[in-house]
Amino acid sequence: MKWKRSERLVDITCYLLDNPHELIPLTFFSERYQSAKSSISEDLTIVKETFEEKGNGKLLTVTGAAGGVKYIPQMAATAIKEVIDELMNKLGEKDRLLPGGYLYMADLLGNPILMDRIGKVFASRFAEEKIDAVMTVATKGIQIAHSIARHLNVPVVIVRRDSKVTEGSTVSINYVSGSARRIQTMVLSRRSMQKGQRVLLTDDFMKAGGTMLGMKNLLDEFECELAGIAVLVEAEHHEEVLVDEYLSLAKLCKVNERSRTIEISEGNYFEKGGQ
Amino acid sequence: MKWKRSERLVDITCYLLDNPHELIPLTFFSERYQSAKSSISEDLTIVKETFEEKGNGKLLTVTGAAGGVKYIPQMAATAIKEVIDELMNKLGEKDRLLPGGYLYMADLLGNPILMDRIGKVFASRFAEEKIDAVMTVATKGIQIAHSIARHLNVPVVIVRRDSKVTEGSTVSINYVSGSARRIQTMVLSRRSMQKGQRVLLTDDFMKAGGTMLGMKNLLDEFECELAGIAVLVEAEHHEEVLVDEYLSLAKLCKVNERSRTIEISEGNYFEKGGQ
Repeated sequence: MKWKRSERLVDITCYLLDNPHELIPLTFFSERYQSAKSSISEDLTIVKETFEEKGNGKLLTVTGAAGGVKYIPQMAATAIKEVIDELMNKLGEKDRLLPGGYLYMADLLGNPILMDRIGKVFASRFAEEKIDAVMTVATKGIQIAHSIARHLNVPVVIVRRDSKVTEGSTVSINYVSGSARRIQTMVLSRRSMQKGQRVLLTDDFMKAGGTMLGMKNLLDEFECELAGIAVLVEAEHHEEVLVDEYLSLAKLCKVNERSRTIEISEGNYFEKGGQ
Repeated sequence: MKWKRSERLVDITCYLLDNPHELIPLTFFSERYQSAKSSISEDLTIVKETFEEKGNGKLLTVTGAAGGVKYIPQMAATAIKEVIDELMNKLGEKDRLLPGGYLYMADLLGNPILMDRIGKVFASRFAEEKIDAVMTVATKGIQIAHSIARHLNVPVVIVRRDSKVTEGSTVSINYVSGSARRIQTMVLSRRSMQKGQRVLLTDDFMKAGGTMLGMKNLLDEFECELAGIAVLVEAEHHEEVLVDEYLSLAKLCKVNERSRTIEISEGNYFEKGGQ
């Protein structure tokens, strides 16, 4: 069956969105649709222009024998701002306030469409860097890590607090949890990373940055490199943050348990050399 | 700016894939593209036919004043078979074998593109049922739960082994872990589900089904209903499975530590009243 242009456009779009950051040879599409490469090239030009027009991402064209196209998810600044605003509004809802001044966030982390968009926000920023894996600590960072990783098409690496038999041999380190100054342990399966990989760290919440520093030390143990730090919500606090460079979407400034008010401001995403 | 049909097709496809199971009024698209509703209708017919032709999903049209279109992710049986075969091949790799006959699966669970496709496989089966949430136990089921939930556009609910301050008030139950017959605890935030919801349970691995039974009991505590059980890998074992109806993609039949062989067969996905 020969495909019409309109059908090819729909199907190419589906295929690209499902396979971000993957080089797809033109022959793949020309065989899939029984169409000439020249027609496929024209299709891809339309897709490329529409993606760029609507701020959905880029379509890179790699020429030559090993050439093809690669879809790079990238959100426009206006769309990123919308995601951040939505997150801030939700975080500011009064009934999130828990005893001790903590915020209930499980519903946000469990919202897959919101997480997917947040993943794309961070993936946009790191789209042009070499990232080999996204690392987080179990359990609350997993959904963010997975969402970022899907848009970058790299594996997720999950650090645990305890060793499990299903992890095989592990590397473990001790670190000082920033706010409580407690000694804690982090465990990571030995085979989860290879020497020399560049790793993006992420978590749902960061105060002093102790957990992030722990993960950074774990990277050293594996002879891996820190590629960046992506945090959903950072909390204002008085001491210095233990890690240098991080991106955050929102900042928890003040919590008043008595009046039940939560003050949220924008994180540093746009400040830190944005698009 | 007025959009051309070709551009609209690409952008409509992106929008639908990002917002599954959501009713989108035709006016949304006609305003977005400054185009007549009749043109949008024609666009949607092309998208619908292409989605169905290539086995990407369905496009439901709801007529009337509150009408619109809804994208239902649904994979064709051949594509589902491909995903299951890929999973089985990967599970059968010799070097997954850990002491005690366990399988290392962290790399598979951490592969976001594979998880996304597995999520779509399960979401395909439950696409026409009323599902209000996807529930799993921390930590290894989270990525599967998130992937299924994204394709169904419903929240993920994560049961923990221990209570955390960031969960607010919780409900906890004791259950007997099937294989080891140990008493364990499950904790779930009180506000994570509402009475009467229909919940899909999922996990990466199931042996006797003790954890599943625990989650099922937790559903009773919340006066919620079991909508289904989706398991990535089930293990062959001698006693009866503690839960009745479940879907699995692969089955771990035999592990021989001495000869380092792993025997994997297909799960019951297609057996259990498939597409």
